[in-house]
Amino acid sequence: MPTRSEDPRLGDLSEGEILRAILSRTAPGAHTILGPGDDAAVIAAPSASVVATTDTLVHGPDFRLAWSGGYDLGWKSAAVNLADVAAMGARPTALLVALAVPRALRLSFVTSLADGLREACAALAPGCAVVGGDLTVSDVLTIAVTALGDLEGRTAVTRAGARPGDVVAVAGELGLAAHGLAVLFGRFRDGDEPVPVDPALLAEGEPAAIAAQLRPAPPVGLGPYAAAAGATAMMDVSDGLALDARRLASASDVTLALDGAALGSDPERALAGGEDHALLATFPAGALPAGFRRIGEVRLRGAEALLCDDLPVDVVGWDPYRDWDAAAG
Amino acid sequence: MPTRSEDPRLGDLSEGEILRAILSRTAPGAHTILGPGDDAAVIAAPSASVVATTDTLVHGPDFRLAWSGGYDLGWKSAAVNLADVAAMGARPTALLVALAVPRALRLSFVTSLADGLREACAALAPGCAVVGGDLTVSDVLTIAVTALGDLEGRTAVTRAGARPGDVVAVAGELGLAAHGLAVLFGRFRDGDEPVPVDPALLAEGEPAAIAAQLRPAPPVGLGPYAAAAGATAMMDVSDGLALDARRLASASDVTLALDGAALGSDPERALAGGEDHALLATFPAGALPAGFRRIGEVRLRGAEALLCDDLPVDVVGWDPYRDWDAAAG
Repeated sequence: MPTRSEDPRLGDLSEGEILRAILSRTAPGAHTILGPGDDAAVIAAPSASVVATTDTLVHGPDFRLAWSGGYDLGWKSAAVNLADVAAMGARPTALLVALAVPRALRLSFVTSLADGLREACAALAPGCAVVGGDLTVSDVLTIAVTALGDLEGRTAVTRAGARPGDVVAVAGELGLAAHGLAVLFGRFRDGDEPVPVDPALLAEGEPAAIAAQLRPAPPVGLGPYAAAAGATAMMDVSDGLALDARRLASASDVTLALDGAALGSDPERALAGGEDHALLATFPAGALPAGFRRIGEVRLRGAEALLCDDLPVDVVGWDPYRDWDAAAG
Repeated sequence: MPTRSEDPRLGDLSEGEILRAILSRTAPGAHTILGPGDDAAVIAAPSASVVATTDTLVHGPDFRLAWSGGYDLGWKSAAVNLADVAAMGARPTALLVALAVPRALRLSFVTSLADGLREACAALAPGCAVVGGDLTVSDVLTIAVTALGDLEGRTAVTRAGARPGDVVAVAGELGLAAHGLAVLFGRFRDGDEPVPVDPALLAEGEPAAIAAQLRPAPPVGLGPYAAAAGATAMMDVSDGLALDARRLASASDVTLALDGAALGSDPERALAGGEDHALLATFPAGALPAGFRRIGEVRLRGAEALLCDDLPVDVVGWDPYRDWDAAAG
């Protein structure tokens, strides 16, 4: 650990000094034509189109520094955006990072964040890299990442293409990140304040659940793989399977009929839990690619957009916006 | 004006309701293959590359709601990013908007912001449109915009290509936005608190200066035009001409020798003033395109990166990060 004098507060450094420290942690990207340092970056778009998405983490509603370090936040802010690119069937090519930081934070926090961004790309989307960003000051730590991707000549896989008779399938975890969040909120608070996790207090399975919440590892490579295998519809499961499956069903004007037995040991949690960043996709019957597991079938649109074991699903997904006050503790 | 009951607080609405209100204000883009509503957008990239940049406005260091309404903020957050794309010689194609909003703000604030984004695109970069975004809650209003652009088959114009003998030129205002900021900070505060601008208290020229600060109109179309005309280097002047010209000189390993007489009636303000978003460019002698005015020449690198009337320039640019405390009033 550096001493305090070796790890200055951001407010005591110039923007240029901070940016140089961050950029020294970025790795070159396979698709980067011009990287950080000019007015804008230039990224290869071999398909003559670019997939683009943005997602923000805000201290308070989205994370707590008592539970997440800089590395975790860099990793998670990359991962959630990489998953959105993958869900279109595209290969992530570049990240842009808009960082608003309190002056009291230490330099090591943002260099760890840069490490987390780089390592998430290396682990989840090799070839993708941070190509640009922006640094501002704010009393509320905010990380807005934009991810770009290339379709490799394919058409984007939207939420709207599921057809009756297709198989409903998923790649990645369902409900594990929500389990981790429940452990954090339930057991690592002092009154309303989050306190650091003591690993000695964790039961079997809980470290993995907390890791799924703080450093999610969505199956990014399976997005373009599913697209090449003929996925008819696909989306990132970020607000819980129940809510997101309804969205896919509505966009495709079909009913998704799930098998409860395929949803693991706790189907309720699999349906309700948010922030999994699993990939939900539909495929023509008989065309299920490796990495995906069948969880149901697509039917003609009925009275209900979503069924589980032929019954309506009354689990409500997670709206972080509306739920913020309740979750703020 | 809607009544309060017709203009609910954001905290009383769901994320979906707010997004629908915002998206109803966006216009279709000429380059949009797939717009808002899926996991990511798809934008045409006919040059098989994409120019990308991100810039954030944070309440406090970057704007005050007493001076800027939602429309102003939407406009400015678009304009500053469009200018960065233009400075590479690219044509803006798409914006992604990550918005973090306090729950107490009214719905009309974000719909006005959407109007400002749309109108800035229409006025400054026709064909460019908002293709996606993200909405979160935060106690600090934060607007992070990512802009994408296409090089139309050209190579990007970086800061590094200026050659001795080139002409130094600029398109757009120098120092006007800083003048506007000085009027706001100097005359429209009650103690430390910003108060709304009373137009009756403004002298001749001051409304234009305040407009340049709150709703900048950078010459976005002149960026690709300059690139086609053979610009050897180009950048957006956002931190003041003195600081930004030094950056271009350093990247190109040359000295920029400016003519004070070409910098208008107040050369000091033109050199120091930030947030102009003018385009600074260098061109081969004799190739100055319409819209640009000559302000100096490129020389072999000497002891000083920047000269004005053959003297070193001791004006320091504006570092909003370091200057935040002083400017917070």
